[in-house]
Amino acid sequence: MKKYIGVDLGGTNIRAAVVQEDGQIVCMKKTQSRPQRGAEAVMETMASLIESLDGWKDCEGIGMGIPGPIDTAQGKIIVSTNLPKLIGFPIAAYIQEHFQKPAYMDNDVKVAALGEAVQGAGKGMPIVYYVTISTGIGGALVIDQKVISGQNGHAGEIGNICIDRAREKYNILNVGAVENEASGTAITRKGQEVFGDRIQNAGDVFDLARSGDERAGKIVEDMAYDLAVMFSAIGHVVDPHVFVVGGGVMKAKDVFFDKMESHYRSMIHDGMQSVVFKEAMLEEPGIIGAAMLPMTRLR
Amino acid sequence: MKKYIGVDLGGTNIRAAVVQEDGQIVCMKKTQSRPQRGAEAVMETMASLIESLDGWKDCEGIGMGIPGPIDTAQGKIIVSTNLPKLIGFPIAAYIQEHFQKPAYMDNDVKVAALGEAVQGAGKGMPIVYYVTISTGIGGALVIDQKVISGQNGHAGEIGNICIDRAREKYNILNVGAVENEASGTAITRKGQEVFGDRIQNAGDVFDLARSGDERAGKIVEDMAYDLAVMFSAIGHVVDPHVFVVGGGVMKAKDVFFDKMESHYRSMIHDGMQSVVFKEAMLEEPGIIGAAMLPMTRLR
Repeated sequence: MKKYIGVDLGGTNIRAAVVQEDGQIVCMKKTQSRPQRGAEAVMETMASLIESLDGWKDCEGIGMGIPGPIDTAQGKIIVSTNLPKLIGFPIAAYIQEHFQKPAYMDNDVKVAALGEAVQGAGKGMPIVYYVTISTGIGGALVIDQKVISGQNGHAGEIGNICIDRAREKYNILNVGAVENEASGTAITRKGQEVFGDRIQNAGDVFDLARSGDERAGKIVEDMAYDLAVMFSAIGHVVDPHVFVVGGGVMKAKDVFFDKMESHYRSMIHDGMQSVVFKEAMLEEPGIIGAAMLPMTRLR
Repeated sequence: MKKYIGVDLGGTNIRAAVVQEDGQIVCMKKTQSRPQRGAEAVMETMASLIESLDGWKDCEGIGMGIPGPIDTAQGKIIVSTNLPKLIGFPIAAYIQEHFQKPAYMDNDVKVAALGEAVQGAGKGMPIVYYVTISTGIGGALVIDQKVISGQNGHAGEIGNICIDRAREKYNILNVGAVENEASGTAITRKGQEVFGDRIQNAGDVFDLARSGDERAGKIVEDMAYDLAVMFSAIGHVVDPHVFVVGGGVMKAKDVFFDKMESHYRSMIHDGMQSVVFKEAMLEEPGIIGAAMLPMTRLR
């Protein structure tokens, strides 16, 4: 069975693994990235980490998932808060040169989407739209096992979709941006507006809703509808076979997800009802998805 | 130079042409479709029409554009108001068998989008989102010269995207569906609400706006903003290289388009500003796009 190397490069850690073409992780290791040392030093650390993996020499190629907007054609980071010294450095070219194996990179959300599309909840589906609902809200379009990054790597910046223009402006995002109305951060804010300091995080609001609190229930009901408006926009643009939904907020799927899906189905044409919603299922979508980058490109 | 046959099958006419791979139409003819005669009779008429074209024998393949939702994999019409007797008939298989050439079919809007993406305003661009603003509002996603039809042929049903949930419900479409707020039909309705029977069509409202009428100007201003919200949703989902915009309402582009684009650019991330808007430019996008179906599939 063919094997590939997947790398998850973050501001704190670098994780790397040898992954089989069926998505099984054979060997995984991690080390600190210490990005303040500069690009060359981080690259050397990444190369050493890969070379410490059992079986790395037999791998067909290397894929990397990295936070922020990525220039996938040039293999460079465009913008980064956690890895500023790596912006513009030819990461993919460096790794390809060092290992003499094909190397690819993409944004970490897009790579996780690819992992779910190829080996996870979207397996076997031609058009997968991945949505992560967490601190923020992001997404990625995967068609025939290829991530569609968009002209500027911004395909999937769905957190900025306006779901109601009558809301308040909070930050750089649009008025009524779904990320400001239905993310974990938004639910925490709304909970604190109603319940004050009793609310530490979105989970506290979901707990209150579960226990039957009407005001918490209203927050959750609004969230379900707001998310449905966002899913409806995506659905009418690409009509996917499956929405794969992940992110920390899915821990509360029991309180909002059926409501959301019911609203969604009332907002789409009859002919679109065959779409399915699935929860993201991989333990390590980022590492597996990174390894799927060379696998799906080299076919 | 290679040549392909493009067919535009409608409820009134069938039009067919021999089209060069550079998009030039070599020979085009039309005849009545008379669909009440049934599927076989329409197919025989189509075959005769194609065989009347100079050079049809030298063509590499046949592409057909047909209104309504199309099952592109099976080569059948799913739903049709104008061609009800052709629903479910294996159109592509019939034509492929008759001519012993590869045959493909897709929805007429998607085929026009392909024509614009390959030979028109989107030429050379990897990700093209085509939007037509006419009686209704529709769209199509073309990636690397392939139409992304979606699971059910509904990718591009963007007229149903909600741009403001505070609007009225008019029909089967969503509350605030952009088609009910910014299409030619919608502008006519809004004009009649203000000006009564003086308004025969959307062009009358645009004329009043051009002449400085404030109430007509308000209708156009709202339309520009509503369209920008729709474009913004599409932009955040797929981040295209270019929006190609066609349809009859573009005859009034001088009164609304710059406003729309300005609103759009205020609604997207800085990193997405390199997107361009272009007006659809082909005289015959449907015929040329239909011919591009076999050309782009056979590569």
